[in-house]
Amino acid sequence: MQNPLKAHEMIKGKIEVVSRVKVESKDDLSTYYTPGVAEPCLEIEKDSKKSYLYTRRQNMIAVITDGSAVLGLGNIGAEASMPVMEGKSMLFKTMADVDAIPLSIDTQDTNELIRTITYLSKNFAGINLEDISAPRCFEIEKTLNEILDIPVFHDDQHGTAIVLYAALSNALKLVDKKIEDVKIVINGAGAAGTAITEFLLDAGAKHILVCDKEGILNENDETLNEAHLILAHKTNRKHVVGKLVDAMKDSDVFIGVSKGHLVTKDMINSMSDQPIIFPMANPTPEISVEDLYETKAYIIGTGSSKYPNQINNLLAFPGIFRGTLDSHAKKITKEMMLSASLAIASSIIPSIYQIIPDALDPLVHKNVANAVYETAIKQRVPKTHE
Amino acid sequence: MQNPLKAHEMIKGKIEVVSRVKVESKDDLSTYYTPGVAEPCLEIEKDSKKSYLYTRRQNMIAVITDGSAVLGLGNIGAEASMPVMEGKSMLFKTMADVDAIPLSIDTQDTNELIRTITYLSKNFAGINLEDISAPRCFEIEKTLNEILDIPVFHDDQHGTAIVLYAALSNALKLVDKKIEDVKIVINGAGAAGTAITEFLLDAGAKHILVCDKEGILNENDETLNEAHLILAHKTNRKHVVGKLVDAMKDSDVFIGVSKGHLVTKDMINSMSDQPIIFPMANPTPEISVEDLYETKAYIIGTGSSKYPNQINNLLAFPGIFRGTLDSHAKKITKEMMLSASLAIASSIIPSIYQIIPDALDPLVHKNVANAVYETAIKQRVPKTHE
Repeated sequence: MQNPLKAHEMIKGKIEVVSRVKVESKDDLSTYYTPGVAEPCLEIEKDSKKSYLYTRRQNMIAVITDGSAVLGLGNIGAEASMPVMEGKSMLFKTMADVDAIPLSIDTQDTNELIRTITYLSKNFAGINLEDISAPRCFEIEKTLNEILDIPVFHDDQHGTAIVLYAALSNALKLVDKKIEDVKIVINGAGAAGTAITEFLLDAGAKHILVCDKEGILNENDETLNEAHLILAHKTNRKHVVGKLVDAMKDSDVFIGVSKGHLVTKDMINSMSDQPIIFPMANPTPEISVEDLYETKAYIIGTGSSKYPNQINNLLAFPGIFRGTLDSHAKKITKEMMLSASLAIASSIIPSIYQIIPDALDPLVHKNVANAVYETAIKQRVPKTHE
Repeated sequence: MQNPLKAHEMIKGKIEVVSRVKVESKDDLSTYYTPGVAEPCLEIEKDSKKSYLYTRRQNMIAVITDGSAVLGLGNIGAEASMPVMEGKSMLFKTMADVDAIPLSIDTQDTNELIRTITYLSKNFAGINLEDISAPRCFEIEKTLNEILDIPVFHDDQHGTAIVLYAALSNALKLVDKKIEDVKIVINGAGAAGTAITEFLLDAGAKHILVCDKEGILNENDETLNEAHLILAHKTNRKHVVGKLVDAMKDSDVFIGVSKGHLVTKDMINSMSDQPIIFPMANPTPEISVEDLYETKAYIIGTGSSKYPNQINNLLAFPGIFRGTLDSHAKKITKEMMLSASLAIASSIIPSIYQIIPDALDPLVHKNVANAVYETAIKQRVPKTHE
């Protein structure tokens, strides 16, 4: 890796706003600026959907954060989150030709965020929310998806879930187990943990236990907040009480999306045969890959590019938005997300050291975009415009 | 002119967000995205001014409107204003390599606009306000300039004033009159009329009468709003009472920034010798150029590209922001604006059919940028960052 500070300083910003018009003559000015520009304005005034025809809105999304839960760094605020948002825009354009404007919003008041994003929404064909802390992120995404006429997608939730399930479905094929049968432990009940749980339930999982730092979520526990109560209700039907160590015993799959260093080699060895281990905590995983190599862990995937099987959101978000924009879908449905997951999984012939494709492979992004597009069309998802 | 609707449809948006990084290897991802991107984030968390070093903020402004006073079209709303904002971004980049993000904000509540722009301000090194109706635009610009650490510039006010004064100063040279001596009539007391009045007073004008549709602004008139009272106080010291026709008698300069068709040939002929006439109402000027050719009008400038002497904001705004960004100035001062005006004027050797340069001439924008930069440095304007 180059020195990131030097590299960021030298590049002078990772994105740039360029003109698609060569403005060279009075005629160009008259056509694309005054007086000609009045004509598309008036057409849009008559029919607001024409904004997709006459402006870049057709290919433009916003990457929006409040800086409250940035990477593994936590609540570092709007300004400090900018390099991440800019990086995301860089990747949207590079991988899927989606124009993405990074916007760090300098308030962490939920209602103010919702209002600000609503006021901005007419400029965009979609919104990618990013690095917003749980449980606020749930309300923000849900409310915006209800209010707005464009799709809103919180990548830390759904992007992570989509890629995780792509990896898991390939891993399950390799160990010849079925999603319906396996016991899954999810450690971490924030944005990612919640979204992964919901996604795996939708994909057919029947035996999930979710743990937070107090242990297994259980709806008899009166200290749980509303989001955690719902999670407990959906997963822990038998009201199992215990700690992470108890949940992991005899389980088939461990998914870690919490804080680092919680899982021991003994806990891994207490799992069932050929366990699948995804310690994705960032920057420090729940158990190091080096430690896992000394256990019976059979398939290992992490959030890091240093090891095989990087479970990287980058596999999903560019293609998801490409397919969504191309289909003019007003929402990104569960079915569209599931099709993205399967498209990622089926982009390779899996082996235990490659359960998931390389995010730099352009074919993956094309496959995801096509799958999302086709699902939106087949499912007749309502459209932003014709 | 090409068909503007066809042209807008074909171009698929006049701007685009591109990546400045070639993302080709795992190393690129690690440097510019995770995990490397955490380093500039943490540096900015420690010192927010580092956002100018490690992100595109250093060259990025926002072009912001609420769609309340778009071109001559009036209050057409946020969505319908988008083609204009996008056009402005296209021109910022083409003429002065300024990255400009067009944002139409879907509220016309003054406080909500101020709040929304404040929440967004950390992404940008400057804000160009556009097409916001008077008198709201005054409060919005003033408040934002007080609150924010970046320059805020309402182009309909100051851009118009800067270019108008460039044209006027060259015209005065040609008729051998001085700004201190001439009688000036400004018809229209909205955003542009107010800003032009202030600008000409700052430039040394001593005899200005401002008219709105009721006639000459006069502070004895109890029906005037606060903005108009201030204007009347600053200009009409002798409490002259009358209509536009009275104001124009024996005057040397007519500046029209109102609604069309208010001025007759007789009114022009009632002016002093070699009168300078700038009917800039858009799209219909206060008196047509064809009619003016049948009067004693000596120098004529309009807002239209169909005639000589187009008084076009495009001459100012790109270079103003280029010079401001390069100097890191936190405000765009009166002195910086005046230097821009003089730079435009001195970019040509004036004749009565060319009192102002062609906005497509790249040299003008360089001259404006240099003049603004040098004035900011000489004046020691406080900086956004070192």
